[in-house]
Amino acid sequence: MPGKILITSGPTRQYLDPVRYLSNGSSGQMGQRLAQSALDHGFDVVVVSGPVTVRYPKLCQLVSVVSTDEMLNATIDHFDSCCGMIAAAAPCDYAPAVVAEDKIKKDGQRIQIDLLETPDILAKVGQLKRANQWTVGFALETSDVHERAFQKLKKKKCDLIVINGPSAIDSDHNEIEMMDATGFIVSKFAGTKKAVANAILQQVKKRLLGTGRF
Amino acid sequence: MPGKILITSGPTRQYLDPVRYLSNGSSGQMGQRLAQSALDHGFDVVVVSGPVTVRYPKLCQLVSVVSTDEMLNATIDHFDSCCGMIAAAAPCDYAPAVVAEDKIKKDGQRIQIDLLETPDILAKVGQLKRANQWTVGFALETSDVHERAFQKLKKKKCDLIVINGPSAIDSDHNEIEMMDATGFIVSKFAGTKKAVANAILQQVKKRLLGTGRF
Repeated sequence: MPGKILITSGPTRQYLDPVRYLSNGSSGQMGQRLAQSALDHGFDVVVVSGPVTVRYPKLCQLVSVVSTDEMLNATIDHFDSCCGMIAAAAPCDYAPAVVAEDKIKKDGQRIQIDLLETPDILAKVGQLKRANQWTVGFALETSDVHERAFQKLKKKKCDLIVINGPSAIDSDHNEIEMMDATGFIVSKFAGTKKAVANAILQQVKKRLLGTGRF
Repeated sequence: MPGKILITSGPTRQYLDPVRYLSNGSSGQMGQRLAQSALDHGFDVVVVSGPVTVRYPKLCQLVSVVSTDEMLNATIDHFDSCCGMIAAAAPCDYAPAVVAEDKIKKDGQRIQIDLLETPDILAKVGQLKRANQWTVGFALETSDVHERAFQKLKKKKCDLIVINGPSAIDSDHNEIEMMDATGFIVSKFAGTKKAVANAILQQVKKRLLGTGRF
């Protein structure tokens, strides 16, 4: 019995005022493909997703959120009943220190905004996870890629990390490397997000479920 | 012969770094409905759209852009051959003063960013328009709605302005008022965006094409 996987997916938004927000171009496609692939591999799936237009498989449980705090809370709520989590979301990691109640009115002048870091969902789950639970992170870096990915994996206590570049955002294709907890690249893969999702699920099954931890 | 209408649609994005951007929740649905309605009323249509997932009618010419500057340039390029413009886009009106080349690395500290106003597309077109061209703007305000809409209409030299609220964003429904160049509310309408689009096109035909200006 493979159990249930939690997949976070899509971007989150952090509003400056009722209209404008900070976000990123994550489309939710990778999360959608991972959800389908996890179902195909026999897992139950819960998807915690930010605002996207992709449609997740009907057979998964969908929890829709907007902000990073909401994604964190929903993730913590659901992780307890899951064997592991694949963090494919791209949560907005900065939030305006002040959110204006009314739409900020333009007056021709520059404005300055303070941005605070939002909670790190994967790191929080890394702290919470039990010995028989695992997490897979995603690293999207534009320089110093392997070193940064390894630092991220250690900081967030991931069991595997999927490394990709900004070209993955809002594209149907992806080119990835997978790094294990020792920093070793255990797999490279390029293809459609559907094929990449399947490659990731295979590694999860082989390395995380196959280790006797379950 | 009704001629050609330019419709701007969707949000624009202003990047802070290769991944993070400032934007808003405009879905492009209103622009999509206006494009279809304009075609139905016999106009040729060119749509200048920011990044959206809606599909515009095949019979319109589509120009895809990302930033507000790109939307401005494409709009100016195409407006010359049009009888008028309906500005349904929600261009991101602030842009970071500095765009980081690499993804900004989190270090636990708050960061401060300067935001500059982006060019006002509708105001620029208002300055360029010939005596036989017209523009219809959209006002999305959260307080002081009519006064702000009238100031906007005057500043941008619109012939009509459509007033709606933030509930219109990313929704299939809309509730609008239309204000003419004298500040008079000439029409109120609530319904699906398809019905609202048709109501707007009817006002365009009645008030802008019917005045003998064409």
